[in-house]
Amino acid sequence: MFSISLLTNDYQSDIQAKIDNKTKPPGALGELESLAARIAVIQSHKEKEFAAKLSIKLPQLIVFAGDHGIAAEGVSIAPSEVTGQMVANFANGGAAINVFCREFGWQLSVVDAGILSPVEQSYDVLNQRLGAGTQAFYREKAMSETDVEKGLELGRTLAAEKAAQGSNLIAFGEMGIGNTSSAAAIMAAITKLPIEQCVGRGTGVDESIVVRKKVLIEQALSIHQDSMSSPEDILACVGGFEIVQMTGAMLGAAENKMAIVVDGFIATAAAMVAVSIEPAVKGYFIFSHCSGEKGHSKMLEWFDETPLLQLGLRLGEGTGAALSLPLIHAAVAFYNNMASFEEAQVTDVG
Amino acid sequence: MFSISLLTNDYQSDIQAKIDNKTKPPGALGELESLAARIAVIQSHKEKEFAAKLSIKLPQLIVFAGDHGIAAEGVSIAPSEVTGQMVANFANGGAAINVFCREFGWQLSVVDAGILSPVEQSYDVLNQRLGAGTQAFYREKAMSETDVEKGLELGRTLAAEKAAQGSNLIAFGEMGIGNTSSAAAIMAAITKLPIEQCVGRGTGVDESIVVRKKVLIEQALSIHQDSMSSPEDILACVGGFEIVQMTGAMLGAAENKMAIVVDGFIATAAAMVAVSIEPAVKGYFIFSHCSGEKGHSKMLEWFDETPLLQLGLRLGEGTGAALSLPLIHAAVAFYNNMASFEEAQVTDVG
Repeated sequence: MFSISLLTNDYQSDIQAKIDNKTKPPGALGELESLAARIAVIQSHKEKEFAAKLSIKLPQLIVFAGDHGIAAEGVSIAPSEVTGQMVANFANGGAAINVFCREFGWQLSVVDAGILSPVEQSYDVLNQRLGAGTQAFYREKAMSETDVEKGLELGRTLAAEKAAQGSNLIAFGEMGIGNTSSAAAIMAAITKLPIEQCVGRGTGVDESIVVRKKVLIEQALSIHQDSMSSPEDILACVGGFEIVQMTGAMLGAAENKMAIVVDGFIATAAAMVAVSIEPAVKGYFIFSHCSGEKGHSKMLEWFDETPLLQLGLRLGEGTGAALSLPLIHAAVAFYNNMASFEEAQVTDVG
Repeated sequence: MFSISLLTNDYQSDIQAKIDNKTKPPGALGELESLAARIAVIQSHKEKEFAAKLSIKLPQLIVFAGDHGIAAEGVSIAPSEVTGQMVANFANGGAAINVFCREFGWQLSVVDAGILSPVEQSYDVLNQRLGAGTQAFYREKAMSETDVEKGLELGRTLAAEKAAQGSNLIAFGEMGIGNTSSAAAIMAAITKLPIEQCVGRGTGVDESIVVRKKVLIEQALSIHQDSMSSPEDILACVGGFEIVQMTGAMLGAAENKMAIVVDGFIATAAAMVAVSIEPAVKGYFIFSHCSGEKGHSKMLEWFDETPLLQLGLRLGEGTGAALSLPLIHAAVAFYNNMASFEEAQVTDVG
């Protein structure tokens, strides 16, 4: 279905030699060195030759918004109408993600993947609605198989459009009251970890609501257990419209050999589904941050990845991904522009 | 001697109210919220009124370079001449710190605080030499009390000049083969922690050299134990020319109510001496990163601070401080530009 080119080690030794010949002790730039190497592997693979220079072109950040049936159970600090209010806030440029995108040069797109009621037509919001919120997944499937198929394709097409415009780096954010419940259910279904380790406080509910979330998610996993044999089935049973489209967009971005910046708990749940559908997508991922949401560090362990930032963010919207762009630029800049030992006539003791 | 205005809680409640009224759940921007609050406290204090808008003006990064007598004992991966070679590399724009300063908009200055041999006069390097490297501090005092006094004053004056030019944010980096030994000795002298917890691999020496470093530093602490009753004495006994000037510059920056971005292991050693001289300086510090050098996390614990970045850097030069500037800009930008709940007509459930 998805046709993703598996990244190989063909250029690894050239890339490492270039990094090690910079005027610094070997490894002294820590995680920035692995980041530069990762981008170099992707861009070398795309150009089919060792990339002596890297570039970040037209970085795109797409926020997918969707509502969740489970939110009616009061599993979040806010009611579902806040999803739509925040989508309007994104369109008006007033949210955290707007501020960070302007600050760091991301081009921001906002997608209505299926919020309760559409926002005013005058707003610059892409209409990719799969419905008016999902069904309450602890009672029934969140959405149909057709919705999943349609959602994956919508995301995939949108990422491909951004690639066609010349972008080679893409990040995804989300907005959806109730979506940490959906992400926790996906996490539990894929990792088989106890629900205890997957469910957290979201944007800040108290302990009694965490207990309620756990009960509902346990119930969901129990009623759907025989229906979740594929990653797509998991999305249908316990996913969200924004999560489905984000999953499709990640797969679509990798098909176009874009580097994909993975945000927090919900985006990482989508990334887990994406690698379950097509493992080759993993090489294109850059993990931007570890969020304050309880299960996120376990997700990153599942991927065996160290993220760039640990700022205790728990806002969503793609804010962690947005904040990591300067580090990505820094990695590219040292790779491209630092002097080698020869150039600088510095004694190489590495 | 140093006249630093102690930061107060006068504006704390206005600042917190402004942050909490942004369209996000309370605390959802994690460490960025504390960072914004810290800058707001400094800038409110400076202007003697609640700062409804923050600004970062002409960010300055000063790299102090100095050589160390102890380096002749082979405690580093590189010989002392690499200090001068790297100073030339800084002057030519080829080092990591040059790349990051250009990328993020720091104005960079390079100071010869006392390297073995001065670099060519044509290079744009400030001559503030206290000598041709320190004495080997495991045998004798690294420098005289007069050197310490002179070095503190040179640093202080330089920071004051940057403030006079209109800068309100300053960071310090260093270059000096052997200076993790000096920083470890300072750390042990101030914290009284076992030497085991203070000495690490520097830019990458192997375990046998770590053992040798420990022996020499134990010896230094032993011969100087009766001469280290003041922070200035500690600098004289086991400090470095670059560390002394950095300490003075931190104190001078705080006298001018500048925010001070603290880099890694060596810069944090200077910060420890600075707070030991004048505790009021602490409120002006922003801790940029936790380096890969062993003792650094213990130093940050001593300050009871969580740094912004944990990238495993162990390069020095001020690179960690330089990389944190975008996060500082992000904190200022959300404080200044995010919509409030009223402005965005979003239901406030915080």
